[in-house]
Amino acid sequence: MNRLNEEYRENYFDTIFKSLKNQDKDQFLKHFLELHPTDQVELFQDLYKDKRPMFYEYLSAEEFSEIFQGLEVEEQKEVVKELDKAYAAKMFNYMPSDDAADFLGEINEPHAKDILNAMEKVEADEVIELMSYPEESAGALMTKEFISINAKATAAQVMELLRKEGPEAETVYYLYVVDPKDKLVGVVSLRDLIVAPLNETVENLMSKQVVSVESHTDQEEVAQLIKDYDLLAAPVVTTTNELIGIVTVDDIMDVLEEEATEDFDDFTAAKGATDVNITSFSAARKRSPWIIMLMFFGLITAGVIGTFEETLEEIVLLAVFIPLIMDSAGNTGTQSLAVMVRSLATGSFEKKGLIHTIKREFGTGVMLGIICAIVLMILIPFLYGSYILAFIVGASLFLTLSVATIIGAVVPVAITKLKLDPAIASGPFITTVNDILGLIIYFSIATALLDYLPK
Amino acid sequence: MNRLNEEYRENYFDTIFKSLKNQDKDQFLKHFLELHPTDQVELFQDLYKDKRPMFYEYLSAEEFSEIFQGLEVEEQKEVVKELDKAYAAKMFNYMPSDDAADFLGEINEPHAKDILNAMEKVEADEVIELMSYPEESAGALMTKEFISINAKATAAQVMELLRKEGPEAETVYYLYVVDPKDKLVGVVSLRDLIVAPLNETVENLMSKQVVSVESHTDQEEVAQLIKDYDLLAAPVVTTTNELIGIVTVDDIMDVLEEEATEDFDDFTAAKGATDVNITSFSAARKRSPWIIMLMFFGLITAGVIGTFEETLEEIVLLAVFIPLIMDSAGNTGTQSLAVMVRSLATGSFEKKGLIHTIKREFGTGVMLGIICAIVLMILIPFLYGSYILAFIVGASLFLTLSVATIIGAVVPVAITKLKLDPAIASGPFITTVNDILGLIIYFSIATALLDYLPK
Repeated sequence: MNRLNEEYRENYFDTIFKSLKNQDKDQFLKHFLELHPTDQVELFQDLYKDKRPMFYEYLSAEEFSEIFQGLEVEEQKEVVKELDKAYAAKMFNYMPSDDAADFLGEINEPHAKDILNAMEKVEADEVIELMSYPEESAGALMTKEFISINAKATAAQVMELLRKEGPEAETVYYLYVVDPKDKLVGVVSLRDLIVAPLNETVENLMSKQVVSVESHTDQEEVAQLIKDYDLLAAPVVTTTNELIGIVTVDDIMDVLEEEATEDFDDFTAAKGATDVNITSFSAARKRSPWIIMLMFFGLITAGVIGTFEETLEEIVLLAVFIPLIMDSAGNTGTQSLAVMVRSLATGSFEKKGLIHTIKREFGTGVMLGIICAIVLMILIPFLYGSYILAFIVGASLFLTLSVATIIGAVVPVAITKLKLDPAIASGPFITTVNDILGLIIYFSIATALLDYLPK
Repeated sequence: MNRLNEEYRENYFDTIFKSLKNQDKDQFLKHFLELHPTDQVELFQDLYKDKRPMFYEYLSAEEFSEIFQGLEVEEQKEVVKELDKAYAAKMFNYMPSDDAADFLGEINEPHAKDILNAMEKVEADEVIELMSYPEESAGALMTKEFISINAKATAAQVMELLRKEGPEAETVYYLYVVDPKDKLVGVVSLRDLIVAPLNETVENLMSKQVVSVESHTDQEEVAQLIKDYDLLAAPVVTTTNELIGIVTVDDIMDVLEEEATEDFDDFTAAKGATDVNITSFSAARKRSPWIIMLMFFGLITAGVIGTFEETLEEIVLLAVFIPLIMDSAGNTGTQSLAVMVRSLATGSFEKKGLIHTIKREFGTGVMLGIICAIVLMILIPFLYGSYILAFIVGASLFLTLSVATIIGAVVPVAITKLKLDPAIASGPFITTVNDILGLIIYFSIATALLDYLPK
């Protein structure tokens, strides 16, 4: 049956809702446990709150842990309040250590300690370790539920181990080979293992070229590595190459989405406010520092125009082209910025090098400038009856666009190299800088040619 | 050993380069074939062109197919020209059908037909089928190298099948169960299979809740599904539920990156020009229609200011705040747009609904407007000595920001619903619309209060 068949799914959900209403535990379990965990989560989210306690009663802590993992943090916080303490502790024991650590890192410390104390020591220690790594690092992203094997073991022995440990592990598709000191020495894929003779040793099957990351590696780098090497998981090691965890591909897909959203936020200076779940007030609080800062830039731009007030007094008509100069400078610069931000993010920039890319952008700017200048020099005499005005606007636009592409291209690279706040590379910031430059160019040319303009 | 140890890697590469220089085939093969395919590709790319023929001589078509898959299309085109026709045909036989289809879809038809004719019929037919699906659909993304099994088979029989077919398949981690008519009826993960007793039948092991997609499903939807369900692959079926291929998670990660780049392009109206590999000229050609279109909008804005020329003649000082009004309107609208584009892309929007999100954005706009108005009403009298001017600018900004957030929020949603060109939701477009609205508000208020302004 097709997952996308909404009708079928709704009927199935209805059957489960009915079994809850009739307090028919057997019917409920029979249908509910057939569902994919992701659908279980969705069904739970669709539930009226007063029905939730039935879930905690009918499902074992292990079964409910699958649902809990899939909830948003805010929902998790609500649910934990409704759970019996022993049930909650059991549930956290069953959860993958990385998911447990993610949640416990979000709630207040005394409460987190309470839960950790109620958990089994082995599990709690793993969670505490994961919580100790910096945010957005491989260590914070990894899970402790991996399978490590001995180089001397045979394929048959490993298969036996998998039958025992497999159900607990986050992935069984890569088996990491460690020496007696837990140092990572190789990797065997389950795929290679099952096509191997049963008495073959791991040593002869494993690849020694293990792609690994260190616990402090940035999550974006981990994501790029897993993507480039088409991996299903990457092992995380200490500086002395001791295997301490694995990062799986499903976590990486979330990272890719997170990072794309972060790039977007930086780009638009929306700074974390792209989350639709926050209120107007917190969105305004997060976004206002930027809007106000940019408003101050607007006052600087005002100052620039103010400097040329005398020129403007003579020819008020010059004011009508302010938006045109500003918009064109802004748009062209933003395009260049987008090129750079994406090529930095996807690594395609590395291959071509800085100078090549800047030259490319400058070339593009010059050509765009020429095209725009030509169009304006034809249109303006027709619309406003002045060739000299057409020349001023056209020439300004040509110079402005050429400069705007360079600003758009150089700023994000400089920020990356100098490790400054990437928000400086946001669209609004670049736009403002280009606005100011564009207006200075425009009014300078206009002032120089003032005597030739019709009053 | 750690993949990120650059020094080790460079030494290793050097050894291989040396073996090529010495024409030492054995040494070359010994070291080269130890490398991960991704590193093999990188080494090949680092090579001087005159050394490439040695690669084609030393490596079998099967071995070289691994490298070929990893190259960019432009590089692939170059390489194919250097290959012997029989060697090339063999290489395409060994390539996963989706990768072969991707390349052959990029070159001219007669040449593609030539290659297809030289390939083995079974492989060629698979490639031709894949090339027939629309771009960016599940069909175009899928591979034909999957393993399907019978519901009546035992775990032992399936393991035996895997030993034979495993090396050819794109993934062995999900085994799809089909009925005699090739209809998809279930799925067994390799994980479940290896922990099962050897005489257990597939029927008892499989999950009947198969998450599948149809061949025409958009790739973005496929990506979201694989991400939501934490899958390693998704089966692709016809409208009659016949299994025809699978999409694997490594392809999906490329899709996620592609889609993020597309969103970015739309957002910045850079339209495919974020590719750093194209020349200045083609970048300018792709970007100029937008820049010119937006320049025409700039002329409309000029017309708006022109309408208020009389007001401006009286108070030239009004011109200095044009950039401030425009920038603030543009920035606020762009932030709202970013919120909507991201929440539409990540699906978080669906959960909250349209009205809620628009209300949220409007609320944010009002609050941002109040803050900015207050700041300006304090600063402007101080900078420009006029309370009435401060009131005009402050009030205009308040109204403009409130409207700008709504425009930024409604336009992308309307575009999605009306299936218009998403580029209309680009930052520059929204900015231009907001500029015009902002200036109309500003000059209307100024004109109404003209008599109270100091001349």
